[in-house]
Amino acid sequence: MTQSKDSRIYITDTTLRDAHQSLIATRLQTEDMIPIAKEINKIGFFSVEAWGGATFDSCIRFLNDDPWMRLRSLKEVLPDTPIQMLLRGQNLVGYRHYPDDVVERFVTAAHSNGVDIFRIFDALNDIRNMKSSIKAASDLGAHVQGAISYTTSPVHSIPTFIDMAEELYSLGCDSICIKDMAGLIMPETTRELIQGIKKRVDVLVDLHSHSTSGIAPMSYQAAIEAGVDILDTAMSPFAFGTSQPATESVIASVIGTPRETGIDLLALRNVRNLCMDVRKKYNALVDPISERIDSDVLVYQLPGGMISNLVSQLKEQDAIDKLQAVFDEIPHVREDLGYPPLVTPTSQIVGTQAVLNVLMGGRYLNVTKEVKDYVRGLYGRPPAIIPDAIRQQIIDGEEMITVRPADLLGPIYESMKEEAAGMGLIRKEEDVLTYILYPAIAPAFLKGEKTAEVIPVPKKEGTNPVDFPHAMEVEVD
Amino acid sequence: MTQSKDSRIYITDTTLRDAHQSLIATRLQTEDMIPIAKEINKIGFFSVEAWGGATFDSCIRFLNDDPWMRLRSLKEVLPDTPIQMLLRGQNLVGYRHYPDDVVERFVTAAHSNGVDIFRIFDALNDIRNMKSSIKAASDLGAHVQGAISYTTSPVHSIPTFIDMAEELYSLGCDSICIKDMAGLIMPETTRELIQGIKKRVDVLVDLHSHSTSGIAPMSYQAAIEAGVDILDTAMSPFAFGTSQPATESVIASVIGTPRETGIDLLALRNVRNLCMDVRKKYNALVDPISERIDSDVLVYQLPGGMISNLVSQLKEQDAIDKLQAVFDEIPHVREDLGYPPLVTPTSQIVGTQAVLNVLMGGRYLNVTKEVKDYVRGLYGRPPAIIPDAIRQQIIDGEEMITVRPADLLGPIYESMKEEAAGMGLIRKEEDVLTYILYPAIAPAFLKGEKTAEVIPVPKKEGTNPVDFPHAMEVEVD
Ligand SMILES: [Co+2]
Ligand SMILES: [Co+2]
Repeated sequence: MTQSKDSRIYITDTTLRDAHQSLIATRLQTEDMIPIAKEINKIGFFSVEAWGGATFDSCIRFLNDDPWMRLRSLKEVLPDTPIQMLLRGQNLVGYRHYPDDVVERFVTAAHSNGVDIFRIFDALNDIRNMKSSIKAASDLGAHVQGAISYTTSPVHSIPTFIDMAEELYSLGCDSICIKDMAGLIMPETTRELIQGIKKRVDVLVDLHSHSTSGIAPMSYQAAIEAGVDILDTAMSPFAFGTSQPATESVIASVIGTPRETGIDLLALRNVRNLCMDVRKKYNALVDPISERIDSDVLVYQLPGGMISNLVSQLKEQDAIDKLQAVFDEIPHVREDLGYPPLVTPTSQIVGTQAVLNVLMGGRYLNVTKEVKDYVRGLYGRPPAIIPDAIRQQIIDGEEMITVRPADLLGPIYESMKEEAAGMGLIRKEEDVLTYILYPAIAPAFLKGEKTAEVIPVPKKEGTNPVDFPHAMEVEVD
Repeated sequence: MTQSKDSRIYITDTTLRDAHQSLIATRLQTEDMIPIAKEINKIGFFSVEAWGGATFDSCIRFLNDDPWMRLRSLKEVLPDTPIQMLLRGQNLVGYRHYPDDVVERFVTAAHSNGVDIFRIFDALNDIRNMKSSIKAASDLGAHVQGAISYTTSPVHSIPTFIDMAEELYSLGCDSICIKDMAGLIMPETTRELIQGIKKRVDVLVDLHSHSTSGIAPMSYQAAIEAGVDILDTAMSPFAFGTSQPATESVIASVIGTPRETGIDLLALRNVRNLCMDVRKKYNALVDPISERIDSDVLVYQLPGGMISNLVSQLKEQDAIDKLQAVFDEIPHVREDLGYPPLVTPTSQIVGTQAVLNVLMGGRYLNVTKEVKDYVRGLYGRPPAIIPDAIRQQIIDGEEMITVRPADLLGPIYESMKEEAAGMGLIRKEEDVLTYILYPAIAPAFLKGEKTAEVIPVPKKEGTNPVDFPHAMEVEVD
C-alpha cells in the first residue's frame, strides 16, 4: 500500500522517544509529555515517535511509569497525529528473541492501545527476525515501516541496502526507513541510497539519523534534494548532539521551495516553549558529552551512546586509560563477528567484548554469554560469515543454529500469564506482556513497590553560569 | 587575480577568531591560541581566521593582551597557513569611520605583522566604505576577500547580491565571501546565490555562516553541491551553536567525493584534542544559550548575539518581560532605517533603539546619537531610502550627508601619533593605531596599567553534572 504523495517533506517528530532516549537516557516522564503532545497534535506532523526503543525498560526500571498507560494517555491527546513506535523486530522492546505468540500479542496490544505506525528493524538486518512483527502489524491494518539498520563495512553497500528495501516492500511494508543510529551516513551515500530505493520500488522513504558527528543536517539536505519523503527531527530544545536535527530548522529550510512542509513556524513555537521548560527540569540529566559534536565518532565510526557506555564501563574498572585500546579493538571484534551494525543489542555485545579483550590482555580469553549466543546464531544471521577459527575460539564445539532463532522458541504467553497471575501481578491483560518482557524487574513494578527515580535538581540554565563581566555588546560578525 | 582551482573544497578555520567571538565573547587568550595554531599549521587549511572583528577590542579591554603581539606570535607558528583577518571596512576593527590615512596605516601594519588575507565588509553593503581598505590591501599584494553582508528584506535579493559581488570583483577582490552572520541563509538561496555569482564572475566564493538556527550545515551542503570554493568552519569543541559548523564534519562529509578536501581526519584529532582542553579552561564563560540552537532566530531573523544583547539590556533595566515587545519592534525600526543588515555596528544600533522605543512607550521619543548619525548618513548609504517622515522625526532639521562618510574626515594619524607620544604611550609604531582606535581605553592598556580578566573556574565538564544512577547500557536506537 503506497500512499499518494505530494512534493512536500513530511516530518516525524522524535521528541517524545528518540530525542530523550539519546540525550537523557529515556528519562522523560509521562506527565511531562502530555502537555507537549497536546500542542504537537495541532502541528500536522506525519507522525510522532513516542513509544518503543528503550521506553519500556526505562519506564518500569527507573520511572515507575506504566508504559501502557503512557501510550493510552498520549493517544488521548494525539487524536490527529499518528503515534509511531520503534520495534526491535523479534526483540520487541527488549534484548532477546521472543516467541511468535508474544510478538503477535505485543503488536496487537500496542496497536489497540494507540500505536498507528510500527517502525520495525533488526540489529543484523536479518529479515527473518522482522517477518512476524511485520505480518502482525500488517494484519491489523497498521502502517508498517520497515527499517534498514545503516552501517558501513566491507559487506554492506548501497546495492545490498536497496535489495533489503525491496524485500521489505515485498513483505508489505508501507514505507522504508533508513535508520542511521550512529549518524554516520554521508550526504553522497544518502542521495544514492534514496534515489536507488525509489528507483527500485514506489514507496515512501524516511531518513532517520543522529547529529552525533555533525553530518546529519548535511545528509538531511542531500535527502531533501534526492526526494526523501519523511525526515525524522526533534524539537530544538531536545535536538542535535546525539539526538536528531531540529524540527524547526528542517521546516524553515524548505520554506518557499516545492518541498515546503506546510507547517507553521509560529505554531511550533508553542511546542518549543513547552519543550524548553521540560528541558530545564531535566537539565541535570543531560551529559554535556551528548550535546557536543564528537568528531571521534567520525574517526571510530561508533554511535555516540556506545562511546558513553565504553567510558562508563572502563571507569567502573578504573581503566579509563584503556579507552584508546578499546577503540582500536572494536573494529577487530566487529570484523570477527561478521560486521554487525552497531545498534541495540549488537552495540552492547560488541562493545562489552572489546572491553573484555583489552582488559584480559588477549582476544576471547573471556567471552560473554551474549557473544557465544551471537556466534551460535541465536541473534540471527550475521551480515558476513564468521571465520571458522574465530567461531571455534569462541564457542568451541557448541551447537550452531541456522534457522530463524524464534523457530526454536515455543509459545510462552499462556504459561507465563498463568505464572504472573499466580504471583498476583495482573491488573490488565497488558501486564502479562510487561512481565514476559521484563520478568526480573516487572514483579516489583507491577506490585506497586517501585518509586520513581528523583530528578536531580537542575543546573541553572539560560543564564551565565558564573557572574562574568559580559561586554554590554556582543558583537555580531 | 583569480586562483586556478581544482574541485576540492577549501577550508577556512575560524576557531581562533569567530568561533570564540561567538561562543565566549572573544575571550581566548594568545597563550592558549599558540599551541593550537602550531598544530593547525600542519593541516592544510586554505586559511585560518585569527584576527579582526572583536579581537582588538577584547584584547585591550579585557585580556591585557597586545593584539599586534598576538598577530606576530601567530604568524611565527603559522608559516604554512595564511592568516585571515576580518576587517569592518572603513570601521577597521572599531565601531566608527576612520579617515583614509588611518585605514591605510592599519592595513599596512596588519599585513606586515602577519595578515595574508583581508576579509572586508561593510555593515550597510555600501561599497564606498570598503574601497579604501580594498585598495590598501590590494596595493600590498595581499589576498583581498570582499564580503557581502547577507540579510533578507524587501530591498535585498539574489540579483542585488550578485551585482555587489561583481562590483567587488571589479574593484580587485580575489575572492568573494557570502557573510551570513545571523545564520539565516537557506539552502535554496545559497545555491542560487553561489551559482549566480560564479556565473557572473570567475572568482573564488566562500560561504560564512553561523549554526545559530540549525540551518548552516544544510546550507553548507547546498553550497558544496552548488560549487562553493571555500567553507568557513570551526574545530568541533568550538563549533555549532552561534559558532560555525564543525571543521571535522564538513571535511568528513566530502570524503570519497570529487570535492574531498585532502585533509586528514586523524591529523585533525591533534588540533581537536588541544581545542578540547582549551575549551574546558574557558567553559564557565560559555553561555548555554550560545550553544543551543535557537529557533527564535528563525522566527525573528535576528543574529544569536543580538538576542543575548537584548536580553542583557532588558535585564539591566529590570524589564525582561518586554522581550517579546522588543522582538516585535525590531522589524519596524529596521524598516524605518532602510533595512540595514544586522551586523556590527548596525545590530547594536537597531537593537538599542528598539529597546528604547519599547521602554519609552513610543517610537523615537528618545533617539540614540548613533541612530541620529545613521540617519544623517554618517554610516553610509542605507539599503533603502529612509522615508521623509521618519527622517524628520529622528533628526529634525539636522544636516544630511550624501558623500562617503570618510570624505568628511581629514587625516589624523600624525597628530594623534604626536598626542600619544606626548602621553608616553608609544613603544612601537603599531601602538599609535591602538591609540587611535580605542582612545578611551588604550592609554591604560599601553601604559601597562591593565590586568587580564581572571577566567572563572570551569564547571565540571565531560562527566555527568550530578551523581545520577546511569543505566549501565545506553541504548542505541
Ligand atoms: Co561570523
Ligand atoms: Co535513533
